[in-house]
Amino acid sequence: MKRSEVIAAQERTLRILNDAQIAVTEEEARNLEIADFGLGRLESEGLEIVVYENNERYCAKELVLFPRQTCVEHKHPPVEGRPGKQETFRVRKGVVYLCVPGEPVAAPKAKPPTEYYTVFHEIVLGPGEQYTLAPETLHWFQGGDQGAIVSEFSSPSTDEADIFTDPNVKRIPVVED
Amino acid sequence: MKRSEVIAAQERTLRILNDAQIAVTEEEARNLEIADFGLGRLESEGLEIVVYENNERYCAKELVLFPRQTCVEHKHPPVEGRPGKQETFRVRKGVVYLCVPGEPVAAPKAKPPTEYYTVFHEIVLGPGEQYTLAPETLHWFQGGDQGAIVSEFSSPSTDEADIFTDPNVKRIPVVED
Repeated sequence: MKRSEVIAAQERTLRILNDAQIAVTEEEARNLEIADFGLGRLESEGLEIVVYENNERYCAKELVLFPRQTCVEHKHPPVEGRPGKQETFRVRKGVVYLCVPGEPVAAPKAKPPTEYYTVFHEIVLGPGEQYTLAPETLHWFQGGDQGAIVSEFSSPSTDEADIFTDPNVKRIPVVED
Repeated sequence: MKRSEVIAAQERTLRILNDAQIAVTEEEARNLEIADFGLGRLESEGLEIVVYENNERYCAKELVLFPRQTCVEHKHPPVEGRPGKQETFRVRKGVVYLCVPGEPVAAPKAKPPTEYYTVFHEIVLGPGEQYTLAPETLHWFQGGDQGAIVSEFSSPSTDEADIFTDPNVKRIPVVED
């Protein structure tokens, strides 16, 4: 991504959070992560992330999805002898379609953006609803037509260890000037 | 507390959360905990709690403080060989005065409601600000004049093991019909 794209996406994310009365500090605003997974199509595959806390025992983040934006399919493997990350997604605003292994639903709402999506048991989460993923569960999720804000509560986060279905994904992408 | 008091406090809490665009499910609303610590003076010493998730690895709650309501002084001891609970308080709305061991501040904003308060290093937290307590840190906190909403992220919660300064506290109080 170009730096100008990152800044525009950060500003857009801050407006979304502000509209939802979710306050962040200036430092959090500066560090707001715009993740395009190195794919170069943020609007369709990407995620905006505010990391509130990530310590040795637990982690908390706020996630923003633009309308129909998709967090790419991935799972969290064991790291240094600890079980993979366990995480709870709690929707604060909007609707999220969360897809996990299991029987595909008859009429899915989520639209996989590429062929690198393989699990289609879709869980629909509205405001105040949440779902907890067991470690090593393959998953992807997409914001509804109005986008979404999701609180993530979890065991410690080690994003760089994540395993992605799409071989083109780079979790820590390069920002170009 | 009388059941009618609990229900009134639950309804008040749900209005406060709703005004802040914080959605809860019907089940969460029904289970919303009104903690008066068995002291019978909820307005001055008490806390309203929505438990979002409390599993073997992490915990997340939303806490509501009515104006000037105080969560009584306590600490989280080790439980079953695990270190005491570590917790992060993140203010969503309003102001919170968090008191921990250390140099007392010159002009504290928090007013201890009884003599059972012994730590007076006061940290003032506004919206988007947070503070992480190490395990076994004695602490208490008070909402500002407008009350507050606080997200708590932590290691697993075992409230029944908490150690309180006030010997009259009963963490799991009885509700009378």
